[in-house]
Amino acid sequence: MYRTHTNGELNATKLNQEVTLAGWVQKVRDKGFMIWVDLRDRYGITQLIFDEERTDAKVIEKAKSLAREYVIQITGTVIERESKNPNIPTGEIEILVTKLEILNTAKTPPFTIENNTDGGEELRMKYRYLDIRRNPVKEKLIFRHKVSMAVRNYLTNDNFVEVETPYLIKSTPEGARDFVVPSRMNEGQFYALPQSPQTFKQLLMVGGMDKYFQIVKCFRDEDLRADRQPEFTQIDCEMAFVEQEDILNTFEGLTRHLLKEINQVEVEKFPRITYDEAMKKYGNDKPDIRFGMEFGELNEVTQHKDFKVFNEAELVVGIAVPGAANYSRKEIDKLIDWVKRPQVGALGMVYAKYNDDGSLKSSVDKFYTQDDLKQWAEKTQAKPGDLICILSGETNKVRAQLSALRMEMAERLGLRKANEFAPLWVIDFPLLEWDEETQRYHAMHHPFTAPKKEDIPLLNSNPGAVKANAYDLVLNGNEIGGGSIRIHDKATQAMMFEHLGFTPEEAQEQFGFLMDAFQYGAPPHGGLAFGLDRLVAILGGQESIRDFIAFPKNNAGRDVMIDAPAAIDQTQLQELHLAITHTS
Amino acid sequence: MYRTHTNGELNATKLNQEVTLAGWVQKVRDKGFMIWVDLRDRYGITQLIFDEERTDAKVIEKAKSLAREYVIQITGTVIERESKNPNIPTGEIEILVTKLEILNTAKTPPFTIENNTDGGEELRMKYRYLDIRRNPVKEKLIFRHKVSMAVRNYLTNDNFVEVETPYLIKSTPEGARDFVVPSRMNEGQFYALPQSPQTFKQLLMVGGMDKYFQIVKCFRDEDLRADRQPEFTQIDCEMAFVEQEDILNTFEGLTRHLLKEINQVEVEKFPRITYDEAMKKYGNDKPDIRFGMEFGELNEVTQHKDFKVFNEAELVVGIAVPGAANYSRKEIDKLIDWVKRPQVGALGMVYAKYNDDGSLKSSVDKFYTQDDLKQWAEKTQAKPGDLICILSGETNKVRAQLSALRMEMAERLGLRKANEFAPLWVIDFPLLEWDEETQRYHAMHHPFTAPKKEDIPLLNSNPGAVKANAYDLVLNGNEIGGGSIRIHDKATQAMMFEHLGFTPEEAQEQFGFLMDAFQYGAPPHGGLAFGLDRLVAILGGQESIRDFIAFPKNNAGRDVMIDAPAAIDQTQLQELHLAITHTS
Repeated sequence: MYRTHTNGELNATKLNQEVTLAGWVQKVRDKGFMIWVDLRDRYGITQLIFDEERTDAKVIEKAKSLAREYVIQITGTVIERESKNPNIPTGEIEILVTKLEILNTAKTPPFTIENNTDGGEELRMKYRYLDIRRNPVKEKLIFRHKVSMAVRNYLTNDNFVEVETPYLIKSTPEGARDFVVPSRMNEGQFYALPQSPQTFKQLLMVGGMDKYFQIVKCFRDEDLRADRQPEFTQIDCEMAFVEQEDILNTFEGLTRHLLKEINQVEVEKFPRITYDEAMKKYGNDKPDIRFGMEFGELNEVTQHKDFKVFNEAELVVGIAVPGAANYSRKEIDKLIDWVKRPQVGALGMVYAKYNDDGSLKSSVDKFYTQDDLKQWAEKTQAKPGDLICILSGETNKVRAQLSALRMEMAERLGLRKANEFAPLWVIDFPLLEWDEETQRYHAMHHPFTAPKKEDIPLLNSNPGAVKANAYDLVLNGNEIGGGSIRIHDKATQAMMFEHLGFTPEEAQEQFGFLMDAFQYGAPPHGGLAFGLDRLVAILGGQESIRDFIAFPKNNAGRDVMIDAPAAIDQTQLQELHLAITHTS
Repeated sequence: MYRTHTNGELNATKLNQEVTLAGWVQKVRDKGFMIWVDLRDRYGITQLIFDEERTDAKVIEKAKSLAREYVIQITGTVIERESKNPNIPTGEIEILVTKLEILNTAKTPPFTIENNTDGGEELRMKYRYLDIRRNPVKEKLIFRHKVSMAVRNYLTNDNFVEVETPYLIKSTPEGARDFVVPSRMNEGQFYALPQSPQTFKQLLMVGGMDKYFQIVKCFRDEDLRADRQPEFTQIDCEMAFVEQEDILNTFEGLTRHLLKEINQVEVEKFPRITYDEAMKKYGNDKPDIRFGMEFGELNEVTQHKDFKVFNEAELVVGIAVPGAANYSRKEIDKLIDWVKRPQVGALGMVYAKYNDDGSLKSSVDKFYTQDDLKQWAEKTQAKPGDLICILSGETNKVRAQLSALRMEMAERLGLRKANEFAPLWVIDFPLLEWDEETQRYHAMHHPFTAPKKEDIPLLNSNPGAVKANAYDLVLNGNEIGGGSIRIHDKATQAMMFEHLGFTPEEAQEQFGFLMDAFQYGAPPHGGLAFGLDRLVAILGGQESIRDFIAFPKNNAGRDVMIDAPAAIDQTQLQELHLAITHTS
């Protein structure tokens, strides 16, 4: 037994007890006749005191050799502290040490093990095991566990069964790139790591499992963007004998439970808006609705004058930025520069200040009257004091640009509050989306999503207009979950593959097992998957997922701590029937 | 809403209610004027009745088209059943159907969806989604979930944190073969799938996480034996600031909790025996102690006579098989044939019947007196009525042979009772074991296991004699868990790698990150991993793990349902910088 207590639990109720503690040296203050050491473990910090008058000289001597991050074990007596620290649970006491054992020494860490460290991202990742000693990282990992357990307990209570699906499956050409795993025993063949357990959870529904979930790692070999990981975790769920309404209610229940349990926040029934409405109102299918600034479309009230830019635009659309009417000319110029950055891509911005006195002043005053501007204000729901920002151009592009501006202004105005939660459902997603690169339709969600029954006739005539029973759960401007009602009959599934450009042979080869399964009595079913990394980060009030992952990879998909990936032995390659073909 | 109730919940308290149910047609009994249908879902079976006198003719007509495994939805009234079935919760009622909708038809399944199916193993695996509809398989998957949740809740209550470690890691030459994953973004490099999260959990201890667990998939590319899977699930655990005693107590607590929660069995404190003792008493490091038949070593009491076989044997050892003294000559001959099978490999067997009258009759009476045989009986703890079976030869071989015989006899005598649980700890494992093939020592547990302090001096002089702080948890003759106290300083770890035949450069390249970590203040730590598949099977009273895995692979590592592994596109290979080198 290395310890009788942890470093977070001793207090004045334990005075005069003899205790044994172990942990890391956080700090040493050596005043000559007295030495104080802050001893740290996962549970907290306890102050140790070595006192020339009361502590054995040999122990004092050993204490003088201590340095940061040494691992020690001490025995001593709990005594009242002279200068108390009301900020920590152990702040009323200290331990008068009688025995000290150094369990392990430590080199000086490459960055400070403090809440605010001096270590940069790369260094922290290389020494992630030291980074995890820091409270903010350690707490995030514990927080993640708490969320995972809350999810598991909630779903288990609701009769869901967690079923482990296989990791070594089959590669499919649809969707993102698979990671593959060469098979030694099956020459020239490969397994693939799952991008999601999609087909397996559907087969579990065919198998009568009724309510399935799994917290499961998924894999995508994509070129990494910031805050994307090649391996990520999903809360994967599926239900049989359900309609969309049942699924939305179930997972709204789960999300509400998490907000209550984890964040002590009670949320009203989640609003639902259609994909089309989301694009129209927010220019975005994952709108942040913690704040207003809804889009006001202005074509009607702008295109009757001689302002060519607006007259030629497919869409003229604006937002009212609250309290920004007092922006200086310089500030506005900077904002215009901001929207013109390649990442946003607008060609310019028209603005109108809605002054406190009720008057309006725009950058296009020579074209528009006060009455015109009043109409703009009305359409954008502007109030005196607001700055109306207007972009124009091709509908899809200008919506994306104005959405970026909306989010930027919310960020600047502090409207994206980490402890405020505004979930909503976005429903009625399009079934297909046109891909310019491959010049064909792709499944917007995935090829197993059911089209809305009433839209099936459109599949041939106007595929892009077909809506699906597909939905996303959006929280604070992030898609935290998404799913759909699935196809559950072979004919519809075969037709879908055809629309996605599969030959019947390809469809059979890749997904024959699923379509066969549909012939043996498949129930209506549907489901949803949450991105756990993102969900946990948002519940934790953070934008970045990285610190909620114990050992994340960098943007090149490398683990810099263990230095992976790496070369493997020639023997290993031979056993796998593989050779490396260098590109240069 | 597809249903108001499930098929397992309606009973006489719901009489006269109108309900809507959905599920699969289990059985149709068409008596002409009346049709009964058993409707099945995950929760149970409800009997439906279609009655010419009370049901609409169109509904009757539709009901006549029903066949096994059709998916239907019905609405009707709960009525009292005429011939009640006391064996099922819904046995008092039936539903008088008023509406019937066929949600999906079904081809005749390739095997019967019954508790005892006519389907063979291969067929069941190919149509696993149908196999899962069968109660025995479905219940095993639900049972697995129950066990997993019990583990998670118990460990969480004990302050353990479940931390997800990465799946894309680095290949290491030590131990079993890794599955590897070619990296597209890092030409010629590979990730490996973890055989266990061993190094990561140790780094979490260095990181101060203190108590870690994870229910996690692990991967081994080994030639498969029966009941081995290339991917398997571990309950992986690690603790800091602990000695072996703390770990044994913690996981004995978990195991006792599971036996109580899951099996309603209370177990005494687990016995502990050393590896040496286990080998001596049971010829096996995972003894089944639900029954006796402990080994009696007989060298002393056999080698003073002219029986050459015993005189020349390194070990003469026997067991007393209870109540087998009345075996006929023929039965004993068959038993001798059994021990001579290549799988067991004994050259012969000497036996002595301990007759009910107290006399003894052996197959070597010309060499041994009644007094000699009495001593054999004493050493093997035989009682009148027992058959003493004796093998002899080289110690390790003969122990393995007698262990096989012991288990076989226990099986035949029905002593291996599925609902009886006898856990024990086997401790003090050797650190190293000699491998004939590679002519060097291998780590018996793994290279991170700490040698016993007092044995460290033996590492150079007699490596095979060094014991480790390593332990296995054995339940009913199966190793369900194993672990060790780990090395936590760089010098010892480097020395260990040296003994395992690593050059310092190889050790640094493969495990440098771990040895580096040990220099920054590593706490003493240790842990254990349970094999979840095996644990669940044993708690479920079964020997085979296969039905506790939703989608298992066959003995060639193939998923016959989805037909994986499979060939991949040439483009995909090119992107991965790989070519296939055919062996023929």
